[in-house]
Amino acid sequence: MGAVTEKTKMYALTFYFLKKGICQMTHTVPQNMKAAVMHNTREIKIETLPVPDINHDEVLIKVMAVGICGSDLHYYTNGRIGNYVVEKPFILGHECAGEIAAVGSAVDQFKVGDRVAVEPGVTCGRCEACKEGRYNLCPDVQFLATPPVDGAFVQYIKMRQDFVFLIPDSLSYEDAALIEPFSVGIHAAARTKLQPGSTIAIMGMGPVGLMAVAAAKAFGAGTIIVTDLEQLRLEAAKKMGATHVINIREQDALEEIKTITNDRGVDVAWETAGNPAALQSALASVRRGGKLAIVGLPSQNEIPLNVPFIADNEIDIYGIFRYANTYPKGIEFLASGIVDTKHLVTDQYSLEQTQEAMERALQFKNECLKVMVYPNR
Amino acid sequence: MGAVTEKTKMYALTFYFLKKGICQMTHTVPQNMKAAVMHNTREIKIETLPVPDINHDEVLIKVMAVGICGSDLHYYTNGRIGNYVVEKPFILGHECAGEIAAVGSAVDQFKVGDRVAVEPGVTCGRCEACKEGRYNLCPDVQFLATPPVDGAFVQYIKMRQDFVFLIPDSLSYEDAALIEPFSVGIHAAARTKLQPGSTIAIMGMGPVGLMAVAAAKAFGAGTIIVTDLEQLRLEAAKKMGATHVINIREQDALEEIKTITNDRGVDVAWETAGNPAALQSALASVRRGGKLAIVGLPSQNEIPLNVPFIADNEIDIYGIFRYANTYPKGIEFLASGIVDTKHLVTDQYSLEQTQEAMERALQFKNECLKVMVYPNR
Amino acid sequence: MGAVTEKTKMYALTFYFLKKGICQMTHTVPQNMKAAVMHNTREIKIETLPVPDINHDEVLIKVMAVGICGSDLHYYTNGRIGNYVVEKPFILGHECAGEIAAVGSAVDQFKVGDRVAVEPGVTCGRCEACKEGRYNLCPDVQFLATPPVDGAFVQYIKMRQDFVFLIPDSLSYEDAALIEPFSVGIHAAARTKLQPGSTIAIMGMGPVGLMAVAAAKAFGAGTIIVTDLEQLRLEAAKKMGATHVINIREQDALEEIKTITNDRGVDVAWETAGNPAALQSALASVRRGGKLAIVGLPSQNEIPLNVPFIADNEIDIYGIFRYANTYPKGIEFLASGIVDTKHLVTDQYSLEQTQEAMERALQFKNECLKVMVYPNR
Amino acid sequence: MGAVTEKTKMYALTFYFLKKGICQMTHTVPQNMKAAVMHNTREIKIETLPVPDINHDEVLIKVMAVGICGSDLHYYTNGRIGNYVVEKPFILGHECAGEIAAVGSAVDQFKVGDRVAVEPGVTCGRCEACKEGRYNLCPDVQFLATPPVDGAFVQYIKMRQDFVFLIPDSLSYEDAALIEPFSVGIHAAARTKLQPGSTIAIMGMGPVGLMAVAAAKAFGAGTIIVTDLEQLRLEAAKKMGATHVINIREQDALEEIKTITNDRGVDVAWETAGNPAALQSALASVRRGGKLAIVGLPSQNEIPLNVPFIADNEIDIYGIFRYANTYPKGIEFLASGIVDTKHLVTDQYSLEQTQEAMERALQFKNECLKVMVYPNR
Repeated sequence: MGAVTEKTKMYALTFYFLKKGICQMTHTVPQNMKAAVMHNTREIKIETLPVPDINHDEVLIKVMAVGICGSDLHYYTNGRIGNYVVEKPFILGHECAGEIAAVGSAVDQFKVGDRVAVEPGVTCGRCEACKEGRYNLCPDVQFLATPPVDGAFVQYIKMRQDFVFLIPDSLSYEDAALIEPFSVGIHAAARTKLQPGSTIAIMGMGPVGLMAVAAAKAFGAGTIIVTDLEQLRLEAAKKMGATHVINIREQDALEEIKTITNDRGVDVAWETAGNPAALQSALASVRRGGKLAIVGLPSQNEIPLNVPFIADNEIDIYGIFRYANTYPKGIEFLASGIVDTKHLVTDQYSLEQTQEAMERALQFKNECLKVMVYPNR
Repeated sequence: MGAVTEKTKMYALTFYFLKKGICQMTHTVPQNMKAAVMHNTREIKIETLPVPDINHDEVLIKVMAVGICGSDLHYYTNGRIGNYVVEKPFILGHECAGEIAAVGSAVDQFKVGDRVAVEPGVTCGRCEACKEGRYNLCPDVQFLATPPVDGAFVQYIKMRQDFVFLIPDSLSYEDAALIEPFSVGIHAAARTKLQPGSTIAIMGMGPVGLMAVAAAKAFGAGTIIVTDLEQLRLEAAKKMGATHVINIREQDALEEIKTITNDRGVDVAWETAGNPAALQSALASVRRGGKLAIVGLPSQNEIPLNVPFIADNEIDIYGIFRYANTYPKGIEFLASGIVDTKHLVTDQYSLEQTQEAMERALQFKNECLKVMVYPNR
Repeated sequence: MGAVTEKTKMYALTFYFLKKGICQMTHTVPQNMKAAVMHNTREIKIETLPVPDINHDEVLIKVMAVGICGSDLHYYTNGRIGNYVVEKPFILGHECAGEIAAVGSAVDQFKVGDRVAVEPGVTCGRCEACKEGRYNLCPDVQFLATPPVDGAFVQYIKMRQDFVFLIPDSLSYEDAALIEPFSVGIHAAARTKLQPGSTIAIMGMGPVGLMAVAAAKAFGAGTIIVTDLEQLRLEAAKKMGATHVINIREQDALEEIKTITNDRGVDVAWETAGNPAALQSALASVRRGGKLAIVGLPSQNEIPLNVPFIADNEIDIYGIFRYANTYPKGIEFLASGIVDTKHLVTDQYSLEQTQEAMERALQFKNECLKVMVYPNR
Repeated sequence: MGAVTEKTKMYALTFYFLKKGICQMTHTVPQNMKAAVMHNTREIKIETLPVPDINHDEVLIKVMAVGICGSDLHYYTNGRIGNYVVEKPFILGHECAGEIAAVGSAVDQFKVGDRVAVEPGVTCGRCEACKEGRYNLCPDVQFLATPPVDGAFVQYIKMRQDFVFLIPDSLSYEDAALIEPFSVGIHAAARTKLQPGSTIAIMGMGPVGLMAVAAAKAFGAGTIIVTDLEQLRLEAAKKMGATHVINIREQDALEEIKTITNDRGVDVAWETAGNPAALQSALASVRRGGKLAIVGLPSQNEIPLNVPFIADNEIDIYGIFRYANTYPKGIEFLASGIVDTKHLVTDQYSLEQTQEAMERALQFKNECLKVMVYPNR
């Protein structure tokens, strides 16, 4: 509160100086910008678009880094995810961070030049879900790169100020962009009430799974068992904090988990890959009275689950949809150095190379961890 | 505490009077008793067995009423439920109530003649599950009529005093026996954090489902929608407090629920029948952010569930296994008159007629609600 | 959702008809209105003010009933509550209900003529407290009749549509106005996790205390013990659902509660009067492991509390500040008929008589329960 | 489960070997032992007592380390704490660890020679508190060194096996003894739902306070602010993980905390010293919507607390009485190396020197952190 007041005063002073001509704003916002626009599946063109206007409560952000996410790849190859269909030239990308380039008249939390992470879903703040603190379930959310809302593979985006978060100097823009997938893990940890000292199994070491390991570590999990098909991803998981890795090409996940936990099973399991078999072994690996989070979205609807096992063992199962109230924690955790994310960014591209970046992420899953696009590099 | 002290004093006085010959114990415990013993599937014989001895911390209970439960019928017809196999002459029955016939030397909560309800699973009190308050998950539980522990179709049973509960005079023995299935509903309500004013769907109006309606009502649910195939059961559900009934022979459960809830779905759904299709429509009927309890045990293991629906809508799913800490509440609720249970007991049999009672319950599901056996009538 | 859609369609049709001249809006909003304006402590004048303009997301409400609350009386007599100081001609009143008189262009939940209850605090929807679902802690809340925001002793008020709630025809405007104090009790019940069958003590039977009894009943409390000095209020409490009443002029509250609970103490206690001695006996009446809610605001800051008792017995104490997410529940509870509120409105005044109404409420606490003002009668 | 089975098999084998004379138990239990017996305030004598017999479910423990706790000092100087009065020659000491010297016939979790930590309160496992998982509130608890139950300043104690916990080789007996005060912090963290990344203030850096810092760190608190009068203790707190220390001889605790938190206040505060002023500033330091735990027991009953602050800011206050279900976590945390406890043990004494040890702990609070007694050294 007081901090805000101090900041507000400082900003007020800055504005006064600017107004009086005592100092000058060095940053200038151009009228037009480059954007990577998807016109068809697997067809992205670089175009020139007007820089967006901002409302009184919005900021304009110069986008410095955008991570490629599984959902981006899904839209890119299929043109849809479930009921969300790409029906017009469309811009992907939602894991992003940047620098404040302009602020609306009512913006009191930021000034031009601030380095920020962007929470990509703007919610109404007024519906039942929002008022109960579960704003990720807001039916009117405007989420970057979810049709029809355009995403962040552009040079500038606008965002309502309450979904923008100042990052400390110690955090890179890549880190700030990673807070988006990190948030999914933090939310899963909160929903499954992950306790310090717990034993957890995390299925699937894609970008969400890898950041979920970081979340489990931040919540103090004592034993973190992870599974994947790719050795590269398992090695990365170890760097994130996994204590045990299981390559399911070579080992039976359930059997290994039972061995590691002395037949007890894990306190908590998260499935992050959307893989039916992984979900089934995640469930089977949970101890009596334990918890399962369904994080990954399978492509098929009906998946056979062992229902008597759920009932007999009083398993709790939690569906996970995006996240809420995670960004401040995500920033705090990354700033505290609890995990080293440097090794995660394996591939770097300019905005002009967005299609190349997408193809790379799509075709070389066993070589890439996180592919990053830099719209203003 | 003080109450206990008072009671203890009164008992001490009674014992003193008895000892001095100032008054006399009118109740005498015989050496032998009748028991209804299952020798084979669908074969129960009446035999004479010794009345059990009691430990210092146990009471002997003259069994006055025993309800027949679905699991009794399952053992009776199949000889097993999952890994629990009837391997010797075996006594069924676990929903019971009676009168204290004798007390062990360390028993300080009861005196001979007290009317009591019996919680049928004695737990160790020392394992991790017990210490965390989830004693229904105790691996060492001794549960009446779960092999190899004999049940209550006998004239006398013994029970550790902390699983015995005094009932007020206003409660009948039938009511007291019904607290067992009622407990399942109370536990489901606690696990799903059922709030007053909530909308709930309960699938399946067998004895557990019917008492689950009572639990939902006791927890203040505003709209209670129930489903079943049998009109008799739907009528009974109305008497228990259901506000809407759906006969799934004639109506589509999901469609009706959507209509009743203005397309919103229910806050909470419980499946009590162990029916795969009912479970699927229970899940589909839950609103975004709502909760599902799996109460009924299906006979098959793998049931296809709509996993993307669970994730997208952040559904919580809770497995329900028996109950814990429900008896005092169950007695309080029934004593308060919140539900009228009289109409539930449709059939009454003596101990000698136990096989007849089982066959009746088995073959006339559309005519019976709760079949009750009276071992000392 | 579907319901909303249906409603929206109906409204759209109505607007179309109105626009085309097919039908006519019978309700017309005047330019000016009467208002009861406080100019000094105990000095309220009736003045003419312009009817407020509404924003696109606001509705204009013709105020039909306003209850007088303790805080209104406090401002009226002292000119301040804590840091909130009346510094200009000011309008009191915040427990109100009315009829929609006009709707902003973006309003999709209401149409002219709808009968509504008004939640009087408009929050930002964007701060940390709002996003976590605890919007009652929003630092930027605009609360009716809390300086400098004017209140509801006027003929028309405007309100953002998400703080307005449709009431069923069965609910009177008085009932709808009572949902405000009712909300405090509902919030206390939620914060103290009041369970069905619980034993509760509620200290102080002012309007908040009386509606707190209703909340305890709606949450299924089995034993509801209440205290007050005035027999009138204790009688009213009985009508609301109190099972035991204690007149603290004649009886020792703690002693009586111990007797009623067999020395065990209550599961939950709420102090609603802001009285230090009542708070102390509320605390002392809580059982080991029980919960206390501090609802009433004492006029002094430092109140001696038995801290070793809190620690030794692991009491939870919850501060209660207004409420959040209570209105839908409040409407549901009152509509269900769980409590009869008719007897609560003991005094009725027109807007012109507002000062008279305030004086009545102030001077005849032992004769009045709820004093109601009708600005458009 | 499987682990237990394995262990059980191994033990069974060992017993078989022992029985057959294939191997020999090297450990032999003497008939008598030394004990440090308190006869009067500040008068402890070394006496010879019989080694206790064990029940079928108990183990005999050769006591290797016993920490001196504030309550020991209190009994030693005052002869009582509240209603607990030392009325006979009495043995103090309850923070202890040792080696299994003998096992009862039903003991299946331990074998002679196992290194163990001892949870010093044996509960009934059958009362309402025990069954709900809050066994620290069991009215029938037998707690070491709480009159009339003798404590651990002896060479051998007996203990029911479910309150004994195997420690890994990496843990010293001192560490194992420290799990007792550590448990208080872990319990406070659980009760106040301390979240990773939280800001916490801990008042008082006595042994409980210092281990509470460790607990806060294990739960992932981001900012840990501590207060004390003694620089020695503040330095120790830093080693335990405190991020900010406040010497209240020189600085105003509340002012400093406000500065550190940018005027926001802390998410959670724990008072561990039983000091009224510290409790008041702990409360004042909590942010809106934050939580306070009362861990320390003040010597006076009535402490003035700012009640309007509690209500206006919806503070939660939690009384803390001992702990429940903390030992497995405590062992896990210490074994994980999250905190270094070596520096905490500043003073070491033999059993014969127990009085000397007590006097040291009593008189040199600014020189000692934890004073340890070794009954078998």
